[in-house]
Amino acid sequence: MSSKTKLLQKLGVEHPIFLSPMAGVSPISLSAAVTNSGGLGSIPLASIDFRQDDGLHKLNALIEDYAAGIDKPRNVVNLNFFCHEVEHAPDTAQVDNWKQLYQKAIHASDDVLAKAQFTNGNVSFRELERDHPAKYSLLMDYLGTLRPKAVTFHFGIPNNATMKWLQQKTGCLVLVTATSVAEAVFLVEKGVDGIVLQGYEAGGHRGNFLADETSDENLSTHALFSQVKKYVDTLPVDRAPYLVPAGGIGDAATIRYYLAQGADAVQLGTAFLATPESLTAKFFSAAVDGTRADTAMVELVSGKRARAVRTAFIDALVGLNEFRRDELPGYGYAYNAYKSLKPLVEQDIGFYLAGQNYHQISKGKLTEHVMHELINGLK
Amino acid sequence: MSSKTKLLQKLGVEHPIFLSPMAGVSPISLSAAVTNSGGLGSIPLASIDFRQDDGLHKLNALIEDYAAGIDKPRNVVNLNFFCHEVEHAPDTAQVDNWKQLYQKAIHASDDVLAKAQFTNGNVSFRELERDHPAKYSLLMDYLGTLRPKAVTFHFGIPNNATMKWLQQKTGCLVLVTATSVAEAVFLVEKGVDGIVLQGYEAGGHRGNFLADETSDENLSTHALFSQVKKYVDTLPVDRAPYLVPAGGIGDAATIRYYLAQGADAVQLGTAFLATPESLTAKFFSAAVDGTRADTAMVELVSGKRARAVRTAFIDALVGLNEFRRDELPGYGYAYNAYKSLKPLVEQDIGFYLAGQNYHQISKGKLTEHVMHELINGLK
Repeated sequence: MSSKTKLLQKLGVEHPIFLSPMAGVSPISLSAAVTNSGGLGSIPLASIDFRQDDGLHKLNALIEDYAAGIDKPRNVVNLNFFCHEVEHAPDTAQVDNWKQLYQKAIHASDDVLAKAQFTNGNVSFRELERDHPAKYSLLMDYLGTLRPKAVTFHFGIPNNATMKWLQQKTGCLVLVTATSVAEAVFLVEKGVDGIVLQGYEAGGHRGNFLADETSDENLSTHALFSQVKKYVDTLPVDRAPYLVPAGGIGDAATIRYYLAQGADAVQLGTAFLATPESLTAKFFSAAVDGTRADTAMVELVSGKRARAVRTAFIDALVGLNEFRRDELPGYGYAYNAYKSLKPLVEQDIGFYLAGQNYHQISKGKLTEHVMHELINGLK
Repeated sequence: MSSKTKLLQKLGVEHPIFLSPMAGVSPISLSAAVTNSGGLGSIPLASIDFRQDDGLHKLNALIEDYAAGIDKPRNVVNLNFFCHEVEHAPDTAQVDNWKQLYQKAIHASDDVLAKAQFTNGNVSFRELERDHPAKYSLLMDYLGTLRPKAVTFHFGIPNNATMKWLQQKTGCLVLVTATSVAEAVFLVEKGVDGIVLQGYEAGGHRGNFLADETSDENLSTHALFSQVKKYVDTLPVDRAPYLVPAGGIGDAATIRYYLAQGADAVQLGTAFLATPESLTAKFFSAAVDGTRADTAMVELVSGKRARAVRTAFIDALVGLNEFRRDELPGYGYAYNAYKSLKPLVEQDIGFYLAGQNYHQISKGKLTEHVMHELINGLK
């Protein structure tokens, strides 16, 4: 049995297509549509604060929604956690700099800027695991009952005990994002089941955890996949992880190429941004028709590098920034401040995450139609 | 007749593989070996100063060497020119900053640093065309006699009269590098015959001419090709340029993918870096066996962004730099200063240009064997 077939059997799906977990963009209906089409829906959990008492209730509500929407067992799903190093709360100078920058970029009044909330809105799985043992246990118990087919981590890796527990007690596959060969080697040594190989083209937050932005080589999906595949081919079969390239992949020909070269599945997100299910469908449907805007790797909105459409807002922010990275609030805090400001200003300061190939997507097609076209093209 | 077949007929070659013009790295023997194997050898002319009386003699000597080495007519060749905007000579502060940076990075003595020559070593075709009409005419006459199959330009485009003259009087195909959709659209409007689509993975100097480094989207070869192909498909057939993706392409499977998606040829350089013909064979043969070093986009050696192996020298230079780009000498001047310094210091401060996939190349194979393997894989 080929590695690809084995992966599909383990996941309980027909086709080697994962939905990218897109927090804030992909509702449960999008995940369900991908799963119903024979791929694997992914549910992003980055915005659930599992330190809070209602964290598990929120997760359960998502799973119930998902279960009601799919024609498969409820555990045919990928649950995605962020696993970054927790940043320090910003000091006064960082907050002031941020307000200065946003004042210049969006001309918000002091009153409005004063309402920005510098609390940490992105809770890391790592923080839960390390600092909140009771809540961590409850989450693990829940996962043990649900037995999801896959759990994925972005921005890093949980500790060994968590990974072994997930693999052995829930039977799920643990996959972690890598953006470099060094990260892939590290993940293999940690015993992950699979690696999501996130190329530089990919939309959304770049998941690097060993390199910082100055040392990150920014490997394309093709270069990253080629190099990691070459390394994996040197491993004993039982240590070889599943490989799931992600980034810039939006058509059947490209998927066929990666599968033929030994990928076990692919992960797609941007391809679904203009479907009616997407929460950013309105923006991306207009963008497909409109004047072409580039994407850019932007760290000034969330505090971490993410690929987004270069709107007038992003241009202003990038063009006006005079601060070094450490002179502004860190990830989580910056992101929450931005999110809290967004509904208070008149203009659209949306942060539209998308891959380099977002111009290629077609609009107005249901997710199941996009999936259908891709799958037909794989035959 | 398909566009691909038409291109091969026009070039007088059997296989859709161009050698990347690699100044300082690929000697005539490498170009000849690619041509003899059925591809198209490319001769880099960036380092010939056609303002000087001996410029044309140097070109002629290269062509004679090439003609003696190939089993095809001497005009089966791609001649490559740089076509950048000419930079100003550096002022004293820029020179002092440069010396400070190099002093820190390579610990060269003041005596040695004083010997660095800040003359412009990279003469632009654009400068010749605009400011040296007599020498420009001589070069055009020479090209009119040689009638090379292809002339390519990097960093920009010659004026309309030059392009029309090359196309109509010499019958050659004029191809220009693009790194973005906007550049590709610009080149189509200028009436180029073809576009070399240089992705972010590519080794060597990045040929962008509309975007600067902060606005450059750094599209991967795949994203750039996909997007430009989509645009070209909207053009009338007689206006559609040949498309030649370049960057990160080093195996037959990837070439097959691009040809199947509508590329007319591909351009490869890194694949040949460890052949005995390459002038950097020693470094790259060792690199293939050695500890993996990343590549990086570096502007501190030549004054323009180029992808190079991240050696200790490059690391030191990047890590120690405290200057803004405009506080250092511009391209040409910076590059010449570096080149003049290189033989005067003991340590290896080589500037090893290579694509992101350089780890994939095999060593010790003759260029014709590398070509043979690629071509066999295309069948």
